Amino acid sequence: MEHTMDKIQAMLTPQSIAVIGASSKPGKVGYEIFSNLKNGGYNGELIPINPGSQEILGVPCLPTIVDCGKPLDLAIIILPAPLVYQAVKEALSVKTKSLCIISAGFKEVNKEGAALEQEITQLCSTQKTRLLGPNCLGLINTHHAMNASFANRMPKEGAISVISQSGALCTAILDWAAGRHLGLAKLISMGNKADLSEIDFLKTFTEDPETKVIVGYLESIGAGHEFIKAAEAAAMIKPVVILKSGVTQAGGKAASSHTGSLAGADIAYGSAFKRSGIIRADTFEQLFDFATALAMQPLPTGKRVAIITNAGGPGIMAADAVELSGLEVSILAHASATALRKKLPAAASVGNPIDVLGDADPKRYVDAVNTAMDDSNVDAIIVILTPQAMTRPAETARAIAACSESKKPILVSFMGGEDVMPGRDELVAANLPDYPTPERAVAALKAMFEYHQWLKRPSRVLQRFAVNRRRVERIIHRDIREKIFQMGEAEAKMVLDAYGFNVLPGRLAADAGEAVSFAEKIGYPVVMKIASPHIVHKSDIGGVKLNLTSAGEVYDAFDLMMLRVSQKNPTAQIDGAYIERMANPGREVIIGMTRDPQFGPLLMFGLGGIFVEVMRDVTFHIAPITEEEAMTMLSQTRSFSLLTGVRGQAEADIQAIANALQRISQLVTDFPQIVEMDINPFIVGEVGTDSVAADARITLAKTD
Amino acid sequence: MEHTMDKIQAMLTPQSIAVIGASSKPGKVGYEIFSNLKNGGYNGELIPINPGSQEILGVPCLPTIVDCGKPLDLAIIILPAPLVYQAVKEALSVKTKSLCIISAGFKEVNKEGAALEQEITQLCSTQKTRLLGPNCLGLINTHHAMNASFANRMPKEGAISVISQSGALCTAILDWAAGRHLGLAKLISMGNKADLSEIDFLKTFTEDPETKVIVGYLESIGAGHEFIKAAEAAAMIKPVVILKSGVTQAGGKAASSHTGSLAGADIAYGSAFKRSGIIRADTFEQLFDFATALAMQPLPTGKRVAIITNAGGPGIMAADAVELSGLEVSILAHASATALRKKLPAAASVGNPIDVLGDADPKRYVDAVNTAMDDSNVDAIIVILTPQAMTRPAETARAIAACSESKKPILVSFMGGEDVMPGRDELVAANLPDYPTPERAVAALKAMFEYHQWLKRPSRVLQRFAVNRRRVERIIHRDIREKIFQMGEAEAKMVLDAYGFNVLPGRLAADAGEAVSFAEKIGYPVVMKIASPHIVHKSDIGGVKLNLTSAGEVYDAFDLMMLRVSQKNPTAQIDGAYIERMANPGREVIIGMTRDPQFGPLLMFGLGGIFVEVMRDVTFHIAPITEEEAMTMLSQTRSFSLLTGVRGQAEADIQAIANALQRISQLVTDFPQIVEMDINPFIVGEVGTDSVAADARITLAKTD
Repeated sequence: MEHTMDKIQAMLTPQSIAVIGASSKPGKVGYEIFSNLKNGGYNGELIPINPGSQEILGVPCLPTIVDCGKPLDLAIIILPAPLVYQAVKEALSVKTKSLCIISAGFKEVNKEGAALEQEITQLCSTQKTRLLGPNCLGLINTHHAMNASFANRMPKEGAISVISQSGALCTAILDWAAGRHLGLAKLISMGNKADLSEIDFLKTFTEDPETKVIVGYLESIGAGHEFIKAAEAAAMIKPVVILKSGVTQAGGKAASSHTGSLAGADIAYGSAFKRSGIIRADTFEQLFDFATALAMQPLPTGKRVAIITNAGGPGIMAADAVELSGLEVSILAHASATALRKKLPAAASVGNPIDVLGDADPKRYVDAVNTAMDDSNVDAIIVILTPQAMTRPAETARAIAACSESKKPILVSFMGGEDVMPGRDELVAANLPDYPTPERAVAALKAMFEYHQWLKRPSRVLQRFAVNRRRVERIIHRDIREKIFQMGEAEAKMVLDAYGFNVLPGRLAADAGEAVSFAEKIGYPVVMKIASPHIVHKSDIGGVKLNLTSAGEVYDAFDLMMLRVSQKNPTAQIDGAYIERMANPGREVIIGMTRDPQFGPLLMFGLGGIFVEVMRDVTFHIAPITEEEAMTMLSQTRSFSLLTGVRGQAEADIQAIANALQRISQLVTDFPQIVEMDINPFIVGEVGTDSVAADARITLAKTD
Repeated sequence: MEHTMDKIQAMLTPQSIAVIGASSKPGKVGYEIFSNLKNGGYNGELIPINPGSQEILGVPCLPTIVDCGKPLDLAIIILPAPLVYQAVKEALSVKTKSLCIISAGFKEVNKEGAALEQEITQLCSTQKTRLLGPNCLGLINTHHAMNASFANRMPKEGAISVISQSGALCTAILDWAAGRHLGLAKLISMGNKADLSEIDFLKTFTEDPETKVIVGYLESIGAGHEFIKAAEAAAMIKPVVILKSGVTQAGGKAASSHTGSLAGADIAYGSAFKRSGIIRADTFEQLFDFATALAMQPLPTGKRVAIITNAGGPGIMAADAVELSGLEVSILAHASATALRKKLPAAASVGNPIDVLGDADPKRYVDAVNTAMDDSNVDAIIVILTPQAMTRPAETARAIAACSESKKPILVSFMGGEDVMPGRDELVAANLPDYPTPERAVAALKAMFEYHQWLKRPSRVLQRFAVNRRRVERIIHRDIREKIFQMGEAEAKMVLDAYGFNVLPGRLAADAGEAVSFAEKIGYPVVMKIASPHIVHKSDIGGVKLNLTSAGEVYDAFDLMMLRVSQKNPTAQIDGAYIERMANPGREVIIGMTRDPQFGPLLMFGLGGIFVEVMRDVTFHIAPITEEEAMTMLSQTRSFSLLTGVRGQAEADIQAIANALQRISQLVTDFPQIVEMDINPFIVGEVGTDSVAADARITLAKTD
């Protein structure tokens, strides 16, 4: 690991670079990259490799990298795809520490390209040489004066590092940063991610003293679990803001459980991001709206916002946005109002928003900002300026900057265009994040606040329950051996029983006589449920009978059920009916799990019946889950208050549900063979009663 | 009316203007306005009024407007508030057609100011002279070369007219428009709206040939009903985009009905805007994002979007945004793919998004746009450009502009900063709306599509039911005479009965004996409900007993209910208990109305019980309501499918609910004295059965 980080370091801060395929023809990528390095201030050793040229931009060319005769830190390859393999081989032969392949024509094109890409990647891995790309824009490290990309803009030194799965987006980012005079630290175009991926750069940037904020644009994430680990470790140290695109492309997999059918791909990403403290941007604009605020200002330690404005309307807009976002328009301390009353004109409003009036000079803004800064009822400050007759945007920006003490975040909105632009430039220069509208400033503040809350979350303590793991192991292994991938209710309940769930006494009856004799043993009333690996929604086809209270009822119910089910589903294999003690009445909830291909087990909770099926009122969380997180899953459903005893009902045993979620979490973490499961219903009584897993289904991963 | 429009016309296109309080001191508002008029190209007669000056900017001054000796079209007053009354009087004495008072110091300051403002307004109304302001920035008409404001920026001629309740926001808009080289038609700062308001300008702009899109920033709306009428009439002719701020300021009124407590002030605005076809902007940015698209491009006639991009990542972002917004990523016709395959390089993607590749020249964009334009599966086109090495933003912009045929809307996102700016300027010049991100382009397209849908809505046909209006009149008049403002259940049901609702036979019983004898007459089973003007939530305190099947049960229930209720609510006046035939079982829904202070009766619908109380799954609509609108109210609840027969249940009589909503609509329109009402529950059976208003409450407006 240490070794691998060294190699990435060699790539980011190389002392020597070979540009294989450097060209002397302007407009060619091989020229652009070499010229960006040469003319961009890079002052390490720079060697153009081109067998057809003597020199490029005055630097002598070598025919091949082998001719360097020594290990270089980084080789950048810009050759037609068919020539790349040979070039990589040569680079490795002289122990080049890291490679960046700009060339396209690999996995993104066709199968042959994918095969070639894999060969190259394997070749590199034999020497543990790290590879960026192929099919990428290159990389930039402003603090190393290195523009190893074919983007013509080199940003100034800054605190934000960017990783992007789209090269074109990098050019848009660079152009946008230039327009706003904003610096960046590092920018990495990851291309096809044949080797180096977001996980590597998350780790690298976490350690990088020049990176204060990590920004990522991702279209796919490979190793979900590793990603979560790396992202969480990074987010503990510095903010990570990510835009994940492709969110609406449905997973398209057939799901046989409720949980599976309700959990879209985006829900898994959402859960993973939340869990790992990633600040999620929903749009490209938010990506840098959030990142600049996080890079420039301290985090708010609370949600109470003071708004300072020279215009009533935009002040109201800001207040609306604050309230809608879940932050609070602070009630200023009495002393603040008194202080402001003395300093501001009589017509000024000393409430919140603080209206410093249309003719406000810089001093009025300073007085208001200082007052808010000293007010213990204020956690963050939004400053709004509109360009009115007497307004001096640039001076005001400088004055505000001078009174920022890094105690509380200040976010600014200078609204307008040309007149306010000098002021906006001053703000950026003074590390004050600036937004064209108050709403965008508020959204950024909200993201900061949520990140602060995540940082302050209690430490995650996973409870391990004493369970009979061996028993479940035996059941699962036998099923898989026998190619049974859909566990019947009886078996699923044995599994749950082994993991500490209450299940009611019950047995599988093959005929009506057996059903009656089991019922007599179990004691009335009983429930009868069709047992078939092919029937998912039992009650829809008459496959469930509740509250059977006598032998006669059981006898009749069994025969009728067999008749009805075979009429409605003639091809289904019927194993008989499951006879079970009827549960005490209680609240029905559903607890489930579906395994996301990227992020693994995704737990679901919802109230049963219509709440899941019609209202889709469910929450998800990636396993393993803590008690705290389980409680949050419960409380975030809209219908939660039905469990806490609204409308005169007794409070349900919420703790029992949280406990069940944790046990399922442990079960599905212990057994990756389980790909989907539902406990539906899980019947919860009042506190003090036993909650029961009344029905359950478990699906195992198919094997050949 | 004709007359009044003439006067507003005189204000917007004056042939003569007096500037009362014109000044020769730069920096003073009286100077700025005069100089903006004089130097801004205004070529009508311009008279500075100032008793202390001989001339201003070379124009001879008059001491008072009376000295003009003739009627002028417009007088602009910039004097300290105490001097304004006299100036207005003088202006009226020479029959000045319209007035604009810039001065502050009126309603916005204190009671005295408000009184002064009212006196001035009344003075004007005696001569039917229209007044803009006070406390405003003034007005601009670019097509008349008139900048009668103290904003120093005069936009070029354009198609968007703006009304704003915030003067400061006008300056921000003007500055922003300058930065984007965007033209405006008229800009009106309405100030305190003492006389002229959004309603007048909506009417004026509807008729104005130079206005293609109306944009409004509003903090309050005065006459709700008139506003809806004016807005709807305007929206039929041209798009109206409005940002309403102050949305989170809760109405704060005490509500005694479910409907009242669920309907916030913002819901009324939302309903009013939707009803009248107003395109609502949620943020300042959206206001002009939407307006520019609407001003520059034709409306999409469908929701199928083609995306053209030179970069994969932003294409995915756009596709995400399209899907999330409810629009559709179009499936291109087969012929389109074939055509594109011929014209674009092999590596290009001819699906949707159409990827013209990173090195795309203008021609590739043109080929793609033309193909999408001719594809009958495409209703709208989003074009994305990122600044890559070979990209020529300005040329590409011109090329796209050349192939826009006004058949289908084209919205563009040139992403970046400095490099793309020349292209962005070309786009604006060519009437192609341009956005910094694909997401914002998609949001604008969505707004256009929704407006198109509104325009194409079926004509509103209000059904009038034959009802017994006289009977309700008598009940209400008697109640008001007797100072009964909270109708009991028995009375409320008489009202409903008169309006064609099914109510079950029932009577108010004063004692247990009466209760039994009524029950015997009505027939068992019966329901018993406490009758008290002071008890709202009857069942919470044991005030409801269902399914009483014998005289003995009725007798016991009555006495127990009186005991329980008096224990739990000892101060409530108890009138007895209402005995009623028990309803057949059915779906319980709630139908209600609360009267919004601005917009009048607001109807509510939701499924009963937890759906309203816990899930808050309700919809609202402003009365009067059509059958179509009532059906939409139903279908827009999340729980709607419970009525249409999900989970094996029979379909409820949805038509009966829609009918009930229309009858309530007629009732509350007929009787403005009704301020709140709930029918809860309204019990709906299957189609063919009778639906029943099982409980109801009606609140009348308090009179002194």
